[in-house]
Amino acid sequence: MDVAQFKEFADASLDFIADYCENIRQLPVLPNVEPGYLSREFPQTAPQKGESWKHIMEDINTSIVPGLTQWHSPYFHAFFPTGQSYPAIIGELFMAGIGAVASNWESSPAVVELEVRVMDWLAKILGLPEEFLNSSDGPGGGVIQTAASESTLVGLLVGKHRKLQEVKSSNPNLQDCGILGKLVAYTSKESNSSVEKSGIIASVKMKLLPTDADGSLRGSVLEEAIRKDKEDGLIPCCVVASLGTTGTCAFDNIEELGKICQRENMWLHIDAAYAGTALSCPEYRYLLNGIEYVDSFNFNAHKWFLVNGDCSALWFRNTKQVEDAFKLKNIVDLPQFLPELEHWQIPDHRRFRALKLWFVIRIYGVQGIQKHVRHHISLAKHFRSLVESDLRFEVITSNLGVICFKLRQSEAVTQRILENIAKRRKIYIMPYYYKKQLLFRFVICSRFITVEDVECSWREISSQTSEVLKTLEEA
Amino acid sequence: MDVAQFKEFADASLDFIADYCENIRQLPVLPNVEPGYLSREFPQTAPQKGESWKHIMEDINTSIVPGLTQWHSPYFHAFFPTGQSYPAIIGELFMAGIGAVASNWESSPAVVELEVRVMDWLAKILGLPEEFLNSSDGPGGGVIQTAASESTLVGLLVGKHRKLQEVKSSNPNLQDCGILGKLVAYTSKESNSSVEKSGIIASVKMKLLPTDADGSLRGSVLEEAIRKDKEDGLIPCCVVASLGTTGTCAFDNIEELGKICQRENMWLHIDAAYAGTALSCPEYRYLLNGIEYVDSFNFNAHKWFLVNGDCSALWFRNTKQVEDAFKLKNIVDLPQFLPELEHWQIPDHRRFRALKLWFVIRIYGVQGIQKHVRHHISLAKHFRSLVESDLRFEVITSNLGVICFKLRQSEAVTQRILENIAKRRKIYIMPYYYKKQLLFRFVICSRFITVEDVECSWREISSQTSEVLKTLEEA
Repeated sequence: MDVAQFKEFADASLDFIADYCENIRQLPVLPNVEPGYLSREFPQTAPQKGESWKHIMEDINTSIVPGLTQWHSPYFHAFFPTGQSYPAIIGELFMAGIGAVASNWESSPAVVELEVRVMDWLAKILGLPEEFLNSSDGPGGGVIQTAASESTLVGLLVGKHRKLQEVKSSNPNLQDCGILGKLVAYTSKESNSSVEKSGIIASVKMKLLPTDADGSLRGSVLEEAIRKDKEDGLIPCCVVASLGTTGTCAFDNIEELGKICQRENMWLHIDAAYAGTALSCPEYRYLLNGIEYVDSFNFNAHKWFLVNGDCSALWFRNTKQVEDAFKLKNIVDLPQFLPELEHWQIPDHRRFRALKLWFVIRIYGVQGIQKHVRHHISLAKHFRSLVESDLRFEVITSNLGVICFKLRQSEAVTQRILENIAKRRKIYIMPYYYKKQLLFRFVICSRFITVEDVECSWREISSQTSEVLKTLEEA
Repeated sequence: MDVAQFKEFADASLDFIADYCENIRQLPVLPNVEPGYLSREFPQTAPQKGESWKHIMEDINTSIVPGLTQWHSPYFHAFFPTGQSYPAIIGELFMAGIGAVASNWESSPAVVELEVRVMDWLAKILGLPEEFLNSSDGPGGGVIQTAASESTLVGLLVGKHRKLQEVKSSNPNLQDCGILGKLVAYTSKESNSSVEKSGIIASVKMKLLPTDADGSLRGSVLEEAIRKDKEDGLIPCCVVASLGTTGTCAFDNIEELGKICQRENMWLHIDAAYAGTALSCPEYRYLLNGIEYVDSFNFNAHKWFLVNGDCSALWFRNTKQVEDAFKLKNIVDLPQFLPELEHWQIPDHRRFRALKLWFVIRIYGVQGIQKHVRHHISLAKHFRSLVESDLRFEVITSNLGVICFKLRQSEAVTQRILENIAKRRKIYIMPYYYKKQLLFRFVICSRFITVEDVECSWREISSQTSEVLKTLEEA
């Protein structure tokens, strides 16, 4: 493919993407394909000779788009928002076009330095304390990771390493193998499943603790778990707390947990994957209460912050402890530039992901991001009022852009309504089991969503409820 | 940013990228910036109001490009090739534009199904045995990971889990904590540093074994290490072998290692990050000797295969063992589609990375990829002949596109030549310590490289050598 063909193909692709985004409202949010549909349509082996890009374009239209769940449709209310915006798309285009990777500074100065600077911008936008900045005098700093699951794993591994060193220094006769099997970490039952998985990967027993009535992990519960585990000879090393649980967007009590972590010298990692973006607005900064106890803080700019994945932002209070855990001892380097981001992560290279973050922040401006967040939250409040005005339903939780509500009727009826909605494929909404209740979980996701869209989605839920109830009455 | 501004910005970006790629030969391969240059040029806080894309474009030209190491310059001979090509750039553009993510099938059928199909294409292109295909009757399959370091970690973790289960089933009284601290894995001293790091992350002692005269890890060395470790009560669980070591692109003896792994029920993971691409050409398939013993095989399509990162291809002989290690036990799902890629990796989501792989394979065709590989290898042979014709030098190793050679003079002279070359910034070549010798390590990297470029790079090395030797004679 020469440069002329590249430009032809790229122009056609841009037209496609612009049309796709602007007309996403018209596409069914859930695809109408059967499992295995693509295997039946696409050849089993690669072409020997190169093909024209026009054939690919045809296949995108005829085989790929019909098989997509439309994550950016205003009628997509499942999972969480997924970052995508025009500036971020172009940021990724530049990342691909420049095609730079970086390990140390010399291997790509601009890649490393832009990430260092933009992560500071981001920390300031969220209102994180000065200690977490790359530019602070202390050992704090921030770096882009691939996913919240990776950020959690990094936090847990550093916490594990720090505890291992502490126990060994006070018990010089103990071997690693005598300690490793005894390490235990804590999170809530409501935290993301990736937290439990990080325990498996790090070989640290991850205990899932119960939450209070609001879905929040409280200090007293952690306190009791630590007491029992220490009695059993276990060694608590880390707490992974959620600012915004996956199900209901509940907030763990960082202040209560933090005091205990400080006393026990346990690592405190915060997973604010979705909700972290709300901190862009000062009125939500109260969520940071207790941040003075936090060792590592993560949110996904690729969720609500309008940046395409993979762009999970992770800050540390003390990056020396991270380097102590990860930096290979035999690496003899003369650092030309600090911080050395390459030692704060699992892979040894980074792509130029800072570009898309930089583009989004500059094109939207802080005020543009705030407007986006407040718009979503106001739509969530509007949706909540629609649910509350319908006496067949009860709102159970409502936090930021996530509303969970239940039907006062039996759960079997809820199940049936959800099935009907899924079959009609007009909106994508998911069930959620919370405190032994089956709920409708509704999230404001798309950057294109309007108040009319929210009302349209509500009409779908409401009318399908009427349909099912009517059928049941007639039966 | 509305859709009209998006198109304006995107058009300007495409022009930039096309010019950048086509004129990369004119840019200095190493930038002339001092550490911290960007912090001095860029503001310390984000803009409150959104800016015009034109300001970003200016900054790209004035501050970003001058700070880039040009990984795609024909005069870049450091590290390894980094994948970038016109079809891959557009593949990433589509990935960003569509902005889909997938966990299970329902969340994005096309994303999951295209990856399953294209990974089979790729396995066939490399000549991997049928058992590794997603479409095979057995439990094998392939999935895209972020980096070779992640692939190695996944292989190691599954190997660790399998051994743990085996030991526990034959010693029901043993606790995990009694086994965990005894697990040991092996790799060669020449393997990538990420292999050692994966041991740290997985809490498995990773032993670095010596290689033979050709840089290859041999069965006898592994055999002896296992014997000693078992005597010491340790439990060998995994071998990470390299097809193409980082320094000299040496090849471990898979057949010898594999027989031992089979006997000891140890996981055998292959890291073919760079060299795997050569398997696209049948004349290099002999490198797969011993593949019948391999549990997991990885190569980075984002190195030599013309695909932009992150696109590390990983295949398993038995994905059930992977799911056994990673799939959370409390997940109750009714899989609509097999395979369940989301359980074969660390993160729980995937982006639509299959697109760029699909674009590259279709636009180049298998023959186009083969042509690219053979072109690079022929240039490496040409470079080797240039070195050999100069009696001041001696070629130490030459494998695929990687040539290591030394100056017959003292290492202090070599050091000085390398320093001069670095200062002049005309080519980027790195030193490599191998078997206690300081070598010049020269790699064919850029997709734009021609025979004239190779000769030009050689003239730089040769003339700087003459300069330094002349200065020393005069002194």
